[in-house]
Amino acid sequence: MTEPLDLARLQRRLAAFAAARHWQPYHTPKNLVAALSVEASELVEIFQWLTPEESARVMDDPDTAHRVTDEVADVLAYLLQFCDVLGVDPLAALAAKIDRNERRFPAPGAQNAPERPHPPED
Amino acid sequence: MTEPLDLARLQRRLAAFAAARHWQPYHTPKNLVAALSVEASELVEIFQWLTPEESARVMDDPDTAHRVTDEVADVLAYLLQFCDVLGVDPLAALAAKIDRNERRFPAPGAQNAPERPHPPED
Amino acid sequence: MTEPLDLARLQRRLAAFAAARHWQPYHTPKNLVAALSVEASELVEIFQWLTPEESARVMDDPDTAHRVTDEVADVLAYLLQFCDVLGVDPLAALAAKIDRNERRFPAPGAQNAPERPHPPED
Amino acid sequence: MTEPLDLARLQRRLAAFAAARHWQPYHTPKNLVAALSVEASELVEIFQWLTPEESARVMDDPDTAHRVTDEVADVLAYLLQFCDVLGVDPLAALAAKIDRNERRFPAPGAQNAPERPHPPED
Repeated sequence: MTEPLDLARLQRRLAAFAAARHWQPYHTPKNLVAALSVEASELVEIFQWLTPEESARVMDDPDTAHRVTDEVADVLAYLLQFCDVLGVDPLAALAAKIDRNERRFPAPGAQNAPERPHPPED
Repeated sequence: MTEPLDLARLQRRLAAFAAARHWQPYHTPKNLVAALSVEASELVEIFQWLTPEESARVMDDPDTAHRVTDEVADVLAYLLQFCDVLGVDPLAALAAKIDRNERRFPAPGAQNAPERPHPPED
Repeated sequence: MTEPLDLARLQRRLAAFAAARHWQPYHTPKNLVAALSVEASELVEIFQWLTPEESARVMDDPDTAHRVTDEVADVLAYLLQFCDVLGVDPLAALAAKIDRNERRFPAPGAQNAPERPHPPED
Repeated sequence: MTEPLDLARLQRRLAAFAAARHWQPYHTPKNLVAALSVEASELVEIFQWLTPEESARVMDDPDTAHRVTDEVADVLAYLLQFCDVLGVDPLAALAAKIDRNERRFPAPGAQNAPERPHPPED
């Protein structure tokens, strides 16, 4: 690969891959989002019995590191394919959300105690 | 925003957002991946009672379109934060996976019937 | 097994099974609920590329029927173990929810068009 | 309610509730299993930022206790409805699975170190 890695290019490769295999009829938004949630759960499965401390060290084991990397790829693949069939721009969606959250949840001053996370929920 | 949208820049904004709110202690890989799967399910929820045909038209309704876009942002936000704390490069992970799948699942010739999708599973 | 099948008895067998293997330290509510969601996703995976019509016929294939039954067992196992560690009575919880939903969502008269489902959400 | 609580009776009430609202067309196995996974994720959401220790104390707060109980009801409701439309007996499925796991994963003798859980996977 001599071209730089970017999301739009990966999205085009995924679309070509699916088209060459005639998978478009299966790639409804409903099916793709189910597949996305299944892949997210496969990531969760890696962590389900780990303590918080163990979870921070998963990349130390090469097999687990490979599994994590692979599931990240699957989640991103289905997210990009879902966005592609619906015409959603994921980077613009995230940028808009961060902008909105920065306005809605101003960073606390030094005097404030840390709070449990709540964003990026809307 | 005058800079171009790119994943690495959004990832830095998310990290700064979390740091300013002192959320790092909550952002263990285990917690972030749970949050990722919860957001993926919120996307599923939008589609759960729809027919395949209805699912293809969700962006026609502005409220639903906004909800879809917003959940896409949340999924991507947690995926990027998860990758950030573990040092995983999501674009490289996906490029490597597509390369591997292209070798493992050659596109069928025109004479072959379409098959149900199986990749990008490993 | 000569005793009748009931939920409480299965719950006791699951607790004894986990105790004999010294798994209690892993069986935090947080971990059990992650495992529950992972098993629910394994059920989803069976259906993710199927049409609604195909999904209604999954039990016709013995292998798929076995897989479905097995995943149902896993979902129920983790739900019961989760309820056990937190002292939640799942049957009482469901009975109370149905009571509440019957009051909140009266059945429509014959003249009403069917609506898309919304309960049992609260 | 003067009759004893049992799973089969709750399953019949759920079926009657759905039938009175003409929801059967929506209650395909594929849709019900999506709804099940969404409800399981709503349970996960309650725990996603909690430490293992905090997760063990969720029932101390009445509001959180109510939320947990309510989501347990939703998960069980969709599991029972899914089983109903496919003719799966959830108690028999679980009993068979426990039998199988007891044969496949004998309890370790006292000399063995505890292992991380793996069953009830198959």
